[in-house]
Amino acid sequence: METIVLKFGGSSLADNIKLNIVANKIIDFYNKKNKVIVVVSAQGKTTDGLIKEAKELSYSPDKREMDVLLSTGEQISISKLAILLKRLGYNAISLTGWQAGIYTSNTNEEAKIEYINTERIEKELENNNIVIVAGFQGINDKKDITTLGRGGSDTTAVAIAAAIKADHCYIFSDVDGVYSTDPNKITIAKKIEELSYDEMLDLSNEGAKVLHNRCVEIAKRYNVLIETGSTFNNNVGTVINSKIEESSVKSIVKNDNLFLITLKYESYNPDMLNKLYFTLLSNGIIPTNMVNNSTSSFNTSFTIKASDLGTFQELLENELSMFNSAFTNISRISLVGYGILNNDNVIRKTLELLNINSVDIFDIQLEECKLSIMTKEKVSNKILEQLHHELIS
Amino acid sequence: METIVLKFGGSSLADNIKLNIVANKIIDFYNKKNKVIVVVSAQGKTTDGLIKEAKELSYSPDKREMDVLLSTGEQISISKLAILLKRLGYNAISLTGWQAGIYTSNTNEEAKIEYINTERIEKELENNNIVIVAGFQGINDKKDITTLGRGGSDTTAVAIAAAIKADHCYIFSDVDGVYSTDPNKITIAKKIEELSYDEMLDLSNEGAKVLHNRCVEIAKRYNVLIETGSTFNNNVGTVINSKIEESSVKSIVKNDNLFLITLKYESYNPDMLNKLYFTLLSNGIIPTNMVNNSTSSFNTSFTIKASDLGTFQELLENELSMFNSAFTNISRISLVGYGILNNDNVIRKTLELLNINSVDIFDIQLEECKLSIMTKEKVSNKILEQLHHELIS
Repeated sequence: METIVLKFGGSSLADNIKLNIVANKIIDFYNKKNKVIVVVSAQGKTTDGLIKEAKELSYSPDKREMDVLLSTGEQISISKLAILLKRLGYNAISLTGWQAGIYTSNTNEEAKIEYINTERIEKELENNNIVIVAGFQGINDKKDITTLGRGGSDTTAVAIAAAIKADHCYIFSDVDGVYSTDPNKITIAKKIEELSYDEMLDLSNEGAKVLHNRCVEIAKRYNVLIETGSTFNNNVGTVINSKIEESSVKSIVKNDNLFLITLKYESYNPDMLNKLYFTLLSNGIIPTNMVNNSTSSFNTSFTIKASDLGTFQELLENELSMFNSAFTNISRISLVGYGILNNDNVIRKTLELLNINSVDIFDIQLEECKLSIMTKEKVSNKILEQLHHELIS
Repeated sequence: METIVLKFGGSSLADNIKLNIVANKIIDFYNKKNKVIVVVSAQGKTTDGLIKEAKELSYSPDKREMDVLLSTGEQISISKLAILLKRLGYNAISLTGWQAGIYTSNTNEEAKIEYINTERIEKELENNNIVIVAGFQGINDKKDITTLGRGGSDTTAVAIAAAIKADHCYIFSDVDGVYSTDPNKITIAKKIEELSYDEMLDLSNEGAKVLHNRCVEIAKRYNVLIETGSTFNNNVGTVINSKIEESSVKSIVKNDNLFLITLKYESYNPDMLNKLYFTLLSNGIIPTNMVNNSTSSFNTSFTIKASDLGTFQELLENELSMFNSAFTNISRISLVGYGILNNDNVIRKTLELLNINSVDIFDIQLEECKLSIMTKEKVSNKILEQLHHELIS
């Protein structure tokens, strides 16, 4: 008998047809004499809906109360799934975060799991129950409800798998694994069989949506083998483990939601840079890769997220109105794979390809498992496709 | 400084405009230097919506899981109200049933409050918080979520008022008090200033919707003075207390959702009555006032709720198909007031009036504070109006 954790995301639970598919997937695992713990997110767009309702009451809703509000989404999912499994004739029991003993830090809206008291989960497993746990939520030492931030249900699943020493931790979603690049855009994208924790971390941080980075950090720390798969088929997915394989590029991901900003002013004064930096940070905008290209005039460029563009333009009209500005929509293309830093072949081929295409490069970053290039958004698809062809397929 | 409990029902919380009215009502009480505890129901039709969703997954959803599901409704209300009060600049904190220390029996869907540990509520009051507690829900000794059944939020409010020895317990809804009969139907209905617990209990049991009967039972037991009022105006409502006033009819209520059933069979056999009774009870139908009018043939009549009619008709087609049946939609009119049992005048006038109108009476019941008459639904409005005219206005 094995102990397994199955995690299902919100889009896998969006309606009753999908709930039935999920229930049958759970039953398949349970019937193979497994002890089964299921972790679920809120159904479909529930969380977004609750956030919208709260914003109608307050521009910046109290964080403690937001956690009370948002945690109802997963509570609805667990009870519905338990109702369905019981109707299908199976022993099932739902547990909220606090009932499942998930203790977190006190930081509302982005709490960290500190400790799991597995007593209740283990008792219910011994009673042959399918144990359905609300993802994304826990309880702090004041007995207040906390939530783990976006993607927190992945973290719940892996943390429970670690605490209970599960044999398998499956993360199901509407894609069946991690691909060599986005299969919705590049048809020759290949599914990756195995990835190391560090490779997966780099992919998550660069925007691959299969797994949340905090969940991968916990998996790495406690050596939890993660198996990703699709809720809607039985294809073999991607396994994330601690294996170190041969040096190669595993996947190429791209983030298009970035803007390169250039600000100019006729004279240069170091205080202006301080003022700029402070104004951005105090408005929640984090400028990355900020460089100043001149000491005679002020000629500074940096990157911001597309979602911060509105706020930034307001600042330009008010506090930062002295500057002349220019905006360029850029993309960061990241090649991820173990040993890239020391792989001359990858670096050389990438630079050659960029050179042949006469591509403007705004920034290049090279790390242990990752090579990132910033270029104009409009040429980024072509570059990604050529890099994929040259280095992967 | 007084400690007060304010309870708001679902229709008072149905949208953001109403939430703002409720918030301002709460603030008025808080600004008068009161310690304020607010108990809320789920918003508008939330609970009905969740029940409908559960029924789509199972004809008879598991009761433990229904309580997990339904309790999210009040959890959404408390967090939204706290978000709004904080935005308006007031200290507020939400507490779910388990956070508020509301311990109940193990009976899911109709748990009884057994004990309230007021520690957390008192701590939050000392911190000058408006404490917003989820009505209708609690926790049992297994740390499972329970709910108190329909109208349970009234019970939560009165139980907290009793436990915390509150000076006032206000129950707000969309009507401002208890009337001498339904003011939506009989325009001359008068608001009642004061009622005793026993009178209110009889009215609640007969279907008056202002207060739930279990809440009145607790109020009576712990001598909690209840003040009813409207969320949407400042009219004086009805006070429910232990005063015993002069013998008189205070209110006349009517329940139209009843069916008189008559079943016939050519021969009589006592076993048939047993079988009938057992079949009804095991299908959740409670037959009231069952009588058999013959010993040569089987000729039995009894009353069932209109909501059980569908189930009953299915039984007639299957297990009970040997019987000939007839159905009549009937109403129970109840006159409620202290001392009715010994008030010859009330009984005489009622019977005279029924006689003058040649009304079919199916049943008369006389109790300490109540006189009930069952008659055909279609004549019941006329009779109620005449009784109100004769005995109240």
